[in-house]
Amino acid sequence: MPYERDGIRRMAGYTPGEQPDDPRAIKLNTNENPYPPPEPVLAALQAISSERLRRYPPPTSSELREAIAALHGVNASNVVTTNGGDELLRLAITTFVDPGKPIGIADPGYSLYPVLAAVNGSPVVRVPLDGAWQPPADFANCMNQAGVNLTLLVNPHAPSGTLLDAETIAAVAQALDGVLLVDEAYVDFADPERNHDVVSLTHEQDNLLILRTFSKGYSLAGLRLGYGIGDRGLIEPIATKTRDSYSVDAIAEQLGLAALAHRAHAAQTWEAVRGERARLAATLHGLGLECAPSQSNFLLARVPDTLGGGARALYQALKARAIFVRHFDQPRLHDRLRITVGTPPENEALLDALHELCAWGQI
Amino acid sequence: MPYERDGIRRMAGYTPGEQPDDPRAIKLNTNENPYPPPEPVLAALQAISSERLRRYPPPTSSELREAIAALHGVNASNVVTTNGGDELLRLAITTFVDPGKPIGIADPGYSLYPVLAAVNGSPVVRVPLDGAWQPPADFANCMNQAGVNLTLLVNPHAPSGTLLDAETIAAVAQALDGVLLVDEAYVDFADPERNHDVVSLTHEQDNLLILRTFSKGYSLAGLRLGYGIGDRGLIEPIATKTRDSYSVDAIAEQLGLAALAHRAHAAQTWEAVRGERARLAATLHGLGLECAPSQSNFLLARVPDTLGGGARALYQALKARAIFVRHFDQPRLHDRLRITVGTPPENEALLDALHELCAWGQI
Repeated sequence: MPYERDGIRRMAGYTPGEQPDDPRAIKLNTNENPYPPPEPVLAALQAISSERLRRYPPPTSSELREAIAALHGVNASNVVTTNGGDELLRLAITTFVDPGKPIGIADPGYSLYPVLAAVNGSPVVRVPLDGAWQPPADFANCMNQAGVNLTLLVNPHAPSGTLLDAETIAAVAQALDGVLLVDEAYVDFADPERNHDVVSLTHEQDNLLILRTFSKGYSLAGLRLGYGIGDRGLIEPIATKTRDSYSVDAIAEQLGLAALAHRAHAAQTWEAVRGERARLAATLHGLGLECAPSQSNFLLARVPDTLGGGARALYQALKARAIFVRHFDQPRLHDRLRITVGTPPENEALLDALHELCAWGQI
Repeated sequence: MPYERDGIRRMAGYTPGEQPDDPRAIKLNTNENPYPPPEPVLAALQAISSERLRRYPPPTSSELREAIAALHGVNASNVVTTNGGDELLRLAITTFVDPGKPIGIADPGYSLYPVLAAVNGSPVVRVPLDGAWQPPADFANCMNQAGVNLTLLVNPHAPSGTLLDAETIAAVAQALDGVLLVDEAYVDFADPERNHDVVSLTHEQDNLLILRTFSKGYSLAGLRLGYGIGDRGLIEPIATKTRDSYSVDAIAEQLGLAALAHRAHAAQTWEAVRGERARLAATLHGLGLECAPSQSNFLLARVPDTLGGGARALYQALKARAIFVRHFDQPRLHDRLRITVGTPPENEALLDALHELCAWGQI
C-alpha cells in the first residue's frame, strides 16, 4: 500500500547531472569550478578538532553570517546560511508559498525549480524568455495576474549564461506583488567591468531575496554551503522558523570562513574561467557552434543539425569518449549543449573531439 | 509588508539548547556523546582531497548507504541518508502528510515535532504517555480515529530515556493505518542485554520508518548525518523526490564510512556512558532526585520543591556555576531536569554542585 501523498506519487523527481565513476572522465556537465579550493581552505579542514565534530554546530552559523554580512555590506540579520543554495530555494517556497499556490519561473531555467514546486503542490507559472533569454516587459505583470507570491529567476541565466542587468532586476522586483528570489549561483564569474550588483538593491527592495553559493565560485560543491541575503522581514522567518536548526554543519562553517578570508584566490579562478570562456566560445564559433554571450562558467552552444548529427548525437558521441556535457531534451534546448568551462587541457580535449566529430559532418 | 505565509507568521520556531561560549562550561544540556570520535574518523577528515571538495557529492551517498545496509541486514534501497536526523523528520512529514492534515505524537516528546508540524500547517494529535512514559493501549486507535497518516515516536523516549520494547512497537505499527516513524536517535546507548531490535521489524512492517543518527552514538553532532531505514515503498519517494539532491555532503559521507568501519570504538563510549549513567542515577537518588529508568545518554530527574528551590531554581543555580542542564517549562516536566550523562569529571562536578545546592535546602 502506498503511504506517500498523492501529489508526491504523481510527480517526477529531479535528475542530477551524471557523475561518472571513471576518474579520467572529463566532466563538463555539472558546472563545478574547474580549479581546486585554495590551500588555506584545506588547512582549515585539517584544523577541525574532534571537539568540533562531537558538539552541535552553532545553530545559526553566527560567525560565518558576520563574515558574509561584512563582505556584502549588510547586517548579519540580513543573512541566512543554508545547506547549499538548493536548501534556500526549498525554504523560500516553504516560507512564502502556501501549499497549492502558484510559483513563478522564467522559462527555461534551473530544472530543479519545477520539482520543488511539485513537492509543494504548486502549479508553475512559466513566462517564456525572449530570444536573447531576457524576460519580456510584462514579466512581473504576468506573475501578479496569476497570484504568484514567489518568483524564481536565475541570473546569470541557466542554461544560457546570459546576464540580466541590475536595473532590469530592480524594475521586476518593484513591479512584483510577491517575493523575487534571484539565484546568483554563478554571479562570481561575471566580468568585473560590468559592476554587476544586485545585493545592494536589498537595502531598498524588501521583497528581493538573493541566493549565493560556495559551490561554484569557491570550488566547494562537495561541502554544501549557500546563503541568502535580503530584508530582515524575508530572512527572519526562514532563519528562525522554517530552516532546520542545524542545517549547516560545523565543518562547512569553518571552511566557509576560510574561503572568504582567501577570496582573492577564488577571484583568480574566476578570471581564469573568464579567459577560457572567451577562448572556448571563439573556437566553438569557428566550428559552427554559436554560443549565447555567457557571464557564467558555462556556455550554451547551438548545434546545427548538419554538425555531428545534431546536439543529442554529439552529446552521446562525446560521452562515448568520456567527455561529459549536458543535453536537455526539452523545447528550445534540444538543439543545444551546455558546456561547463573546464581547465585549459579539459577544454582542449573537448575541442579536439569536436573538431573530429564535426569534421565528419555526421557521426 | 510581511511576505511569509500566515501559518508561518503565527507559529513559534524551535528553541535549540543553549550553546555557551565559555569553553570551560560543563555542557550536560544537548545530549552529545561526552567522548570524542575515534582517531580513524579524524584521519578520514585529514584525507579529504581538494577534488572531493570541488565536486558535487554522490547524489544518493551510494557507498555510505551500502555500508549502513550491511550493518543492519537490509538492502541499500531500504536506506536514505539525511542532513542529520532532523532532516528525516521533516522529509517524512513532507512525503506522507498533506499540508494541513494531522500528525500524531506521544506527549511529551522531542520538542521539534510540533514545530515541524506547524511548518506543514498540520494540527498535532497528542496522546499522553502514562506515568511510566509508555503509550496507552489505545494509542494507535486514537491516531487512526483522528485520521493521522504519520505518527512520531522517539524511543528511547525523550526526555525520560525510557525504552519501549520492540513487541510494543510492532503492535503499534500493526495497528496504525498510517506510517510510524520511530526516532531511535539514542538507541545506541541501550543495554545490549536487552537485545532491542526494531530495525528487523521493517522486513515485515511496510509502514515502519526508523530514524538513526551519527550525532550521539558516533560523537558526530557537528557533522549532521542521519539516516532512515524502512520498506522500499517508504524510502523511495523520500530518496528520489522530496529529499534535496545533495543534502549529505562529501565529507559527511567519508566520515560516516570511517565511523562505521570503527564502530567498536563507538561501542566503547556507549559502554562508558552506561556505567556513568548508573552511577549518576544512583547518586542522584541518594540526593533525593529520582530518575526514570534510562536506556539513553541522559537522565530525567524529578526535583522535589524542597530541594534546591525546585527544578527551575536548581537549573538556574547550576547555570550560574557554568553547568548547563535542560529544564522544560511545560506540563509534567516543569519539576524535572534533563541531564546528559557526561564524562566522569563532568558528572563529578555536577554532583558536587548538587550536593552543595541541595544540602542548603534552598538556594
